[in-house]
Amino acid sequence: MPPPNERRRAQLADAAIALLVESGIHGVTHRAVDRRAGLPAGTASNYFRSREALLVATARRIVEQHQADMAEASRPDAAAVPGKGDSVELAIDLISGSLMLAAGPHRARYLAVFELRLESLRQPALAAVIDELTAEMAAFTGGYHAELGLRIPPAAIPPMLVMYAGALFALVTGPAEAVTPAAVRPLAAAIVRGGIAAAQA
Amino acid sequence: MPPPNERRRAQLADAAIALLVESGIHGVTHRAVDRRAGLPAGTASNYFRSREALLVATARRIVEQHQADMAEASRPDAAAVPGKGDSVELAIDLISGSLMLAAGPHRARYLAVFELRLESLRQPALAAVIDELTAEMAAFTGGYHAELGLRIPPAAIPPMLVMYAGALFALVTGPAEAVTPAAVRPLAAAIVRGGIAAAQA
Repeated sequence: MPPPNERRRAQLADAAIALLVESGIHGVTHRAVDRRAGLPAGTASNYFRSREALLVATARRIVEQHQADMAEASRPDAAAVPGKGDSVELAIDLISGSLMLAAGPHRARYLAVFELRLESLRQPALAAVIDELTAEMAAFTGGYHAELGLRIPPAAIPPMLVMYAGALFALVTGPAEAVTPAAVRPLAAAIVRGGIAAAQA
Repeated sequence: MPPPNERRRAQLADAAIALLVESGIHGVTHRAVDRRAGLPAGTASNYFRSREALLVATARRIVEQHQADMAEASRPDAAAVPGKGDSVELAIDLISGSLMLAAGPHRARYLAVFELRLESLRQPALAAVIDELTAEMAAFTGGYHAELGLRIPPAAIPPMLVMYAGALFALVTGPAEAVTPAAVRPLAAAIVRGGIAAAQA
C-alpha cells in the first residue's frame, strides 16, 4: 500500500482529472481540486506549490494508471493466446479491446489527456510529461508485440499510435453510446492495416 | 466584398482563433478579443451577446475558411489529373498535401478546432456547429472522390476522416518543424489504406 502522502497526492490528482472533464483546463485550480476531493482548503497547495506542478502531477497520475492497465493487459493469462490465428487479426482484436476500455470505463482519463495535451503547448513542463507518456506507449507496444509473437513491423508502431490516439479522440469526444464493438472494430482495422501500409510506404 | 458588418465579425472571429492558440479556450473573452483585434472595448460584445455566441461565431468562421479552401482545392485546374495513376496513390497524394497545408500554414486554425471540440462537450450550441463541420467534410470528401473518379469505397470515408483528424491532432500538437513530406506521407498512406481496410472489415 502506498504511503499516506502518496495516497493523498493520488486523491488530489484524481479530483483534477474529474475537473478537467467537467470544466476544462481552466477549472483545475488548487481551490477547486480541494473542493472536488472533499479535502480542507489549502491541501492541494500544500502538495503542489504551483498550478504547473498540479497539472504535471495530474499528467503523471494518468501515466501511472495507464501503465498499470498495460501491465494488467500483458499478463499471460489476460492476453490472447500467441500463435493462434494471424498476427494482424490478433492485433485488431487487442486494439479493439483497448479502445473499448479507453473510450468506455476510462473515458474521463483520456479526455483529460487531450485537455492536458493542448495546454502543454503553453506549458513546457507539462509537455515533457506527456512526451514521456507517448514514449512509454511506443516502447510498451513494441515489447508487447514481441511478447505475443505478433509479426507487426516496428516501423508500423509510430503511425499506429498516431491513428490510435486519433480514433480515441473521435470516440471520447463523440457520444458515449456510439462506443460499440461494431463502431470500434473498423477503426482498429484501420489502425493496424493502415500502420502496416505506412511502414511499407 | 462582404458588407462591413460581416468583415467586422470575421475580424473578431480571427482574433478569437489567435487567442485560442495563444491562451486556450479560457483566453477567449469579449475584452481579450477586442484587444487582440485592435478594436475599441465593447466591439465584440456588440456583435456577440454571450461568450457562447462568440465561440459559435469562431467555429463558423473556421467552417467558412475550411470550405473556401476545399472549394479552391476542387477547382479542376488545381486538382490532380483524374484517371492518371491509380486511385489509392492519388488519394494519398491529395491527403498528404491537405495535411501539409492544415498542419503548416493553417496550423492555428486546426489547433483552434481541437480547443473548440473539447469545449463543445460542455457547450451544446458549439457542438452543433462542429458536427456541421464534420458532416460538411464527409459530404465534400465523397463528392470530391466522385469528381476525381477515385475508386475509394464510400464506407471508407468515415474512418478516413477519423484518421485524418487524428493525424492532424498529432501534427499540430507536435513540433512545427516535424511537419515534412517525409513524416506526413506515411500518415496519409495509413489514412487511405487503413480507411479502405476498415470498409472491408
